[in-house]
Amino acid sequence: MTDDDIGAFVPGQTFRIDGAADGPLSGLTFAAKDLFDVAGRPTGGGNPDFARQNPVPTAHAWAVQRLLDGGASLIGKTITDEVSLGILGENVFFGTPRNTQAPDRVPGGSSSGSAAAVAAGLCDTAIGTDTGGSVRVPASFCGLYGIRPTHGALPLDGMLPQAPSADTTGWFTRDAATFRRVSEVMFGKAAPAALPNRLIVAVDAFGFVEPATADALRPMLDRLAAMIGDVREEMLAPQGLSVWGRAQRTLQPREAWETFKPWVERDNPALAFNVVRGLMLGASITDADAGWASLMRREARARLDYLLPPGTVLAMPTTPFPAPPKELPLPDQNAVREAILCLCAHGGLTGVPQISIPGANIGGLPVGLSLLAARGEDLALATVAEALETY
Amino acid sequence: MTDDDIGAFVPGQTFRIDGAADGPLSGLTFAAKDLFDVAGRPTGGGNPDFARQNPVPTAHAWAVQRLLDGGASLIGKTITDEVSLGILGENVFFGTPRNTQAPDRVPGGSSSGSAAAVAAGLCDTAIGTDTGGSVRVPASFCGLYGIRPTHGALPLDGMLPQAPSADTTGWFTRDAATFRRVSEVMFGKAAPAALPNRLIVAVDAFGFVEPATADALRPMLDRLAAMIGDVREEMLAPQGLSVWGRAQRTLQPREAWETFKPWVERDNPALAFNVVRGLMLGASITDADAGWASLMRREARARLDYLLPPGTVLAMPTTPFPAPPKELPLPDQNAVREAILCLCAHGGLTGVPQISIPGANIGGLPVGLSLLAARGEDLALATVAEALETY
Repeated sequence: MTDDDIGAFVPGQTFRIDGAADGPLSGLTFAAKDLFDVAGRPTGGGNPDFARQNPVPTAHAWAVQRLLDGGASLIGKTITDEVSLGILGENVFFGTPRNTQAPDRVPGGSSSGSAAAVAAGLCDTAIGTDTGGSVRVPASFCGLYGIRPTHGALPLDGMLPQAPSADTTGWFTRDAATFRRVSEVMFGKAAPAALPNRLIVAVDAFGFVEPATADALRPMLDRLAAMIGDVREEMLAPQGLSVWGRAQRTLQPREAWETFKPWVERDNPALAFNVVRGLMLGASITDADAGWASLMRREARARLDYLLPPGTVLAMPTTPFPAPPKELPLPDQNAVREAILCLCAHGGLTGVPQISIPGANIGGLPVGLSLLAARGEDLALATVAEALETY
Repeated sequence: MTDDDIGAFVPGQTFRIDGAADGPLSGLTFAAKDLFDVAGRPTGGGNPDFARQNPVPTAHAWAVQRLLDGGASLIGKTITDEVSLGILGENVFFGTPRNTQAPDRVPGGSSSGSAAAVAAGLCDTAIGTDTGGSVRVPASFCGLYGIRPTHGALPLDGMLPQAPSADTTGWFTRDAATFRRVSEVMFGKAAPAALPNRLIVAVDAFGFVEPATADALRPMLDRLAAMIGDVREEMLAPQGLSVWGRAQRTLQPREAWETFKPWVERDNPALAFNVVRGLMLGASITDADAGWASLMRREARARLDYLLPPGTVLAMPTTPFPAPPKELPLPDQNAVREAILCLCAHGGLTGVPQISIPGANIGGLPVGLSLLAARGEDLALATVAEALETY
């Protein structure tokens, strides 16, 4: 069905657009999740009807243009969970991109094809989107470096929105040096030379994950602690990771419904059952529930402002476990998704930057360690990742 | 996309299975809605994933076998709204069967292809299903004779269920004589010679429909009154047609969700947005609401037992208006569906038999007049229809 062995690219959407000849990324290749506009090609959003029912863009998305101007060459558009509503990377129309780092497991989503393409070595980097974990989760499951940038730090022009108060553009790489180079181009400035001087370990997050995951991440956490020096244990979410998850699961689907309602009510597209079920969850959220969730968002923001002054980095597991098996029954998928959400909700709620780095292997399955910093301190995280890779 | 000009048949599902040589229906042809099993062919249910994700039947459905044994020959399987969840006859996967009697209008559903095939003269009769109006509505919109039989009177083996407490197998014809012949085969006995001796006119139903529809049906109603003699005006639903509609809209989607939940949670099929939205409505109904609806069902049954002693026929408009335009925006479709439901709800709630006969034309658009009788009096309605055709 796809043009590549990995099933990472949208059928018919492999091509080449050369980057600037003399840019800092010249010689690198990249792929773009099919939520990003590429001039003259349909933006499919992981759904055949979406591609047919919406106009073909006439300009590149900001992020695509940014990487082309930086010298990287675009080689194709990658499969995504339908309109970015999914966390496992299984698309009933386009299939499941192969996670070469964890055979027989899902790649994670919704930036599934971008992660799978980078993990398989089909390109050097790839852009994705992260609203509720859609870069962080596949980075963890595929053993990659991946970033959810500070919310609002980068223009989202030409990127299909989902929940604008939480949407971000992120990217994947296989190594920390490339990650830092791409990040510098995206943010338009150099990563700082100095490392942060304080590390917070999110004890509630380590307590929340499966014991095997917490144990496996311990050596990498110890290396990080040794490198940074000043280490303190704190709760990330005193109100409860599950409470933050609930707030995010209230605000995000509600916004997603607002985003996609005009399309689905106009064109009545075919979508996977579980995607519509998610949209309907959003449609059913009351003003009272949304009001509560907005207050909890304020508390979460205050908590991260308190925990993360400049110069501080926070470490936590990216996901509660490595990649789950493919094709779980929907009730099992829901349980997996809810658990993942508890570890990802702070991103959409607070907008702080987060990178996931290859943290450990559990029986051959990768799982990521995440680093958070204050809003705007994205490049400091790239510096930490690169230093840690060789520490 | 389909094998016929009308778009009535499922692509690849036109064929011929000869009926018994010496049956009462020998020489007639029929089609079967793609909810009925035909041995060796997938039962598609109007959804490509349903066809793929379920076993191919090894035996004919009871209704198919019954007509074959009666001498009619099967010529193909017809398009249905997805898993019978729809009343307009628009299927995003298979298109909208052409309503030759009302160009540019919907054929009505969910037995859309069966009605369209008969209306276009592609076959003499066709079987459909009626849970909430799926034979009655397309019969009205396509200017056909169509029946929703007494609930429970005919075996439903090999028919894809939707809401078993309301599911029935019905059929369409273009003329009253063929309608009576097919009905006699289905019920296995002759229609009575004597006409009913009392007519009830459902004044609330005539008051509910669009004035132009009520006016247009008046001449046929007057003929019926003249033929029967004893005429009385009564309310069909003293509690409110909209209250009966609400009860049906509570019980039916809840049962439909129970029916389809195992499939959609196992296989996560692609479905039209509005179909899943309907399923999710069913999933969201509380026990308290369902309890109330069951009590109202009891009141509706008592009302029709009171109104319809043997020998009585009740007349009402089948639909509030002729066929609406195709491709209405979903909010407009919902408004149309809700209005139709108010005139159809008594079928699922009470189980009484109902036939829709060609009642009038409004600017070239057919609209049906419906006749109801006591449970088990189905063939008396065939007798009325045939007598009225030549009265």
